[in-house]
Amino acid sequence: MAAPQGLQALRKLLGPEGLIERAGGFGPYECDGLSAYRARPLAVAIPADAEQLGAVLRICHEAELPIVPRGAGTGLSGGALPHPQGITLSLARLNHILALDPASRTARVQCGVRNLAISQAAAAHGLYYAPDPSSQIACTIGGNVAENAGGVHCLKYGLTLHNVLGLRGFTAAGEPIELGSMAGALDSPGADLLALAIGSEGLLCVVSEVLVRLTPKPPEARCLLASFGTVTQAAQAVCALIASGLTPAGLEMMDQAMTRAAEDFVHAGYDLEAAALLLCESDGAPETVAAEIEQMRAVLQACGATRIEESRDEAERARFWSGRKNAFPASGRMSPDYLCMDASIPRARLAEMLAAIEAMQTQWGLRCANVFHAGDGNLHPLILFDGKDPEQLRRAEGFGAQILETAVAMGGSITGEHGVGVEKLSSMCVQFSRAELERFQGLKQAWDPAGRLNPGKAIPELRRCAEGGKLWVREGKLPHPELERF
Amino acid sequence: MAAPQGLQALRKLLGPEGLIERAGGFGPYECDGLSAYRARPLAVAIPADAEQLGAVLRICHEAELPIVPRGAGTGLSGGALPHPQGITLSLARLNHILALDPASRTARVQCGVRNLAISQAAAAHGLYYAPDPSSQIACTIGGNVAENAGGVHCLKYGLTLHNVLGLRGFTAAGEPIELGSMAGALDSPGADLLALAIGSEGLLCVVSEVLVRLTPKPPEARCLLASFGTVTQAAQAVCALIASGLTPAGLEMMDQAMTRAAEDFVHAGYDLEAAALLLCESDGAPETVAAEIEQMRAVLQACGATRIEESRDEAERARFWSGRKNAFPASGRMSPDYLCMDASIPRARLAEMLAAIEAMQTQWGLRCANVFHAGDGNLHPLILFDGKDPEQLRRAEGFGAQILETAVAMGGSITGEHGVGVEKLSSMCVQFSRAELERFQGLKQAWDPAGRLNPGKAIPELRRCAEGGKLWVREGKLPHPELERF
Repeated sequence: MAAPQGLQALRKLLGPEGLIERAGGFGPYECDGLSAYRARPLAVAIPADAEQLGAVLRICHEAELPIVPRGAGTGLSGGALPHPQGITLSLARLNHILALDPASRTARVQCGVRNLAISQAAAAHGLYYAPDPSSQIACTIGGNVAENAGGVHCLKYGLTLHNVLGLRGFTAAGEPIELGSMAGALDSPGADLLALAIGSEGLLCVVSEVLVRLTPKPPEARCLLASFGTVTQAAQAVCALIASGLTPAGLEMMDQAMTRAAEDFVHAGYDLEAAALLLCESDGAPETVAAEIEQMRAVLQACGATRIEESRDEAERARFWSGRKNAFPASGRMSPDYLCMDASIPRARLAEMLAAIEAMQTQWGLRCANVFHAGDGNLHPLILFDGKDPEQLRRAEGFGAQILETAVAMGGSITGEHGVGVEKLSSMCVQFSRAELERFQGLKQAWDPAGRLNPGKAIPELRRCAEGGKLWVREGKLPHPELERF
Repeated sequence: MAAPQGLQALRKLLGPEGLIERAGGFGPYECDGLSAYRARPLAVAIPADAEQLGAVLRICHEAELPIVPRGAGTGLSGGALPHPQGITLSLARLNHILALDPASRTARVQCGVRNLAISQAAAAHGLYYAPDPSSQIACTIGGNVAENAGGVHCLKYGLTLHNVLGLRGFTAAGEPIELGSMAGALDSPGADLLALAIGSEGLLCVVSEVLVRLTPKPPEARCLLASFGTVTQAAQAVCALIASGLTPAGLEMMDQAMTRAAEDFVHAGYDLEAAALLLCESDGAPETVAAEIEQMRAVLQACGATRIEESRDEAERARFWSGRKNAFPASGRMSPDYLCMDASIPRARLAEMLAAIEAMQTQWGLRCANVFHAGDGNLHPLILFDGKDPEQLRRAEGFGAQILETAVAMGGSITGEHGVGVEKLSSMCVQFSRAELERFQGLKQAWDPAGRLNPGKAIPELRRCAEGGKLWVREGKLPHPELERF
């Protein structure tokens, strides 16, 4: 079957409401959260249920059409960027909560269910779904699985990987598969295909259904908001908190550039004189929270906090968090565009990394605001630039790539929770050796021999690395020069 | 290079203390904890360090010699069973703790370090390594990684997967690789190769070094020992505890056959009139433990517990656990041999499964004692038989295979924490579809194209399944009829 016949078969299967073919209808599908990169697909398929999803995959398999699976499009590394000769597979209509079992603390949901919708449905039973990416109002559990999404509470409650028990879905050829246990059993024999699929960025299989673990809502949560005179002191306080044996429910850091922008945007009442703020939360039984908060306060004071506020009620706790949670939109106050980077480093290197980023601002002639999951060592530098000036975009990309290279040099990683997508293909050459990249290639080959699922994403071709992927990074060259930009 | 040249090269590399070639020296290497299966390798290589390990792998690669990696040999599914034409690779000499960093709560250890040795080294800092398989005195972290080992505390603290941050090792061809982050960074980009390697039973790579997460030792732990008049009531209490929002630090169940054998062996003071006992533990800050223990007691009482004892001190807590921890050796009091099965099922099906096992005792004419990680739904039925009677062994295997098949029918799994090895190859045909088994085959092909690492283990040939693997299971046929038994 050739591509035109494939499209014909999709038309017949999905009907007009299930297949967009007019370029005018592609608007919302041309990019994801990494909006600097745009492309148009051949068509957008929107199956109504898992059965149709399997059929779409089988048609695309026969017609040799590339497939780009897409959740809510909130991804930040271009993982859902359309393929010009391919089908964008929107999973938006697979949005039903199929079962919610408070006794086993699990929910079985379709891939298109929004992250927050799970917690809302579980609330009546005193339960919630723990991983809480910033985009949780919009992002879907299928997208969370594809990226192994985290959130402000993952220091204590784990990433998507630690909160998903089973997946149901399809291979590239449209054959049904089940990974982990959809009945919530502890283990699955053999290599951990469930863990392999989580974070695989749509390259290995298409997920239709997810069994998630639900967590009992802690009866109490309290938050400390601590001011520091230097970024270094704040970073040291982060290490000291962990070294003291505490595992805060959230441990976030913002530098002054960020707090000022956030304050301007949401009026969280932040201390704008502080060089850095830490948000440090405890949750659990009231007596545990009281004891932990005292221990946290003592550590923060010993590390030189100049001011410590404690949330007195839920409203105040929400106010403390409001600036952090709105950091990305607030950045619009500082600059017309920003590049939100995502890297992770060993916690002990935080202060050193922040100093390095400070120096890079001068080197690249661009400002950078910092907001991040400090407890996890997961950085989110926001590089500020004006996208109307292509020269500034080029510099922003070079700045970003240098941050990633520095993270690798510190024993860290070019990702934290946003994935590789198209954004970090060249940085993969910095992170991994040839032997390691060959393992990725082999995996892809094993699961999708025809290379039909999300081609050109996440795994760089070895040629790219050999031909100077590292150099491109250093020179701030586009990671995907072959893609048209609008 | 042919096999004799390969052996010659190994001799030169390792010297006489690093290579065993005499059949008389193979004794300790002929089997692992699944001692009904035995075989002799061509030779046993015992590299002194990671460098020699890499060199051994490169020689075996060139000489096309199969490799069977081996930790302490405590595995229970025959994963370390020698290959008659292959090299058993003992990792016993890679037993150094390389670094212990209390500030980041991590330890970097060689693969041959014993599980308990990590906790002992960390104790001075108030830390420990959480996963605690029954064999923790002897088993090594490399073996734990290969099997994704659990333990009595993994309900609260997770499996090996959740407590390992990075791995260093070699591909089948002897190329060095690093998976996850050896510096303890949160994330690693791309598909989760770290998670893939954990639990891969030595089929994908050979691990030389592990970065583990250490956990702060809880200041207090208290245990309840609850008696129930029926096994069903005990199983219902397990579900009720979880449904109430509790996550006990340990939640274990033993039936009467097991408590009587254990009592006879260690004098734990168990209630021998109870049809089943539950051990239910809380750990953490003293005030949390006090509150949780009261909540646990209330649930257990509501579920009909006929007697509840509470540990008053550490000595008493150790006594409560002594029977559980010695359950396997205690089984020697009931029968000359036992087959320790390992399966997991959804927690809600516990009572039903125990009734099914009860019925199978009559069907197969063999007794079975039950001791298990009830909170995880991870069963360990001990099928009692006399190995001197081959007919009894055949029936024990059939009984075991039927338990596994029943677990799959309940939405569970043929493994909990012991791996597939050679023991459960045929049961893999019951668990997985052709499409799913092809994913495993593809993975293996991608990582080890020549099929040199631990061949014949964990992943069944598709032919086996097509030719009646399922039938073999039902008929109690040997999972590996081609292997010689001693």
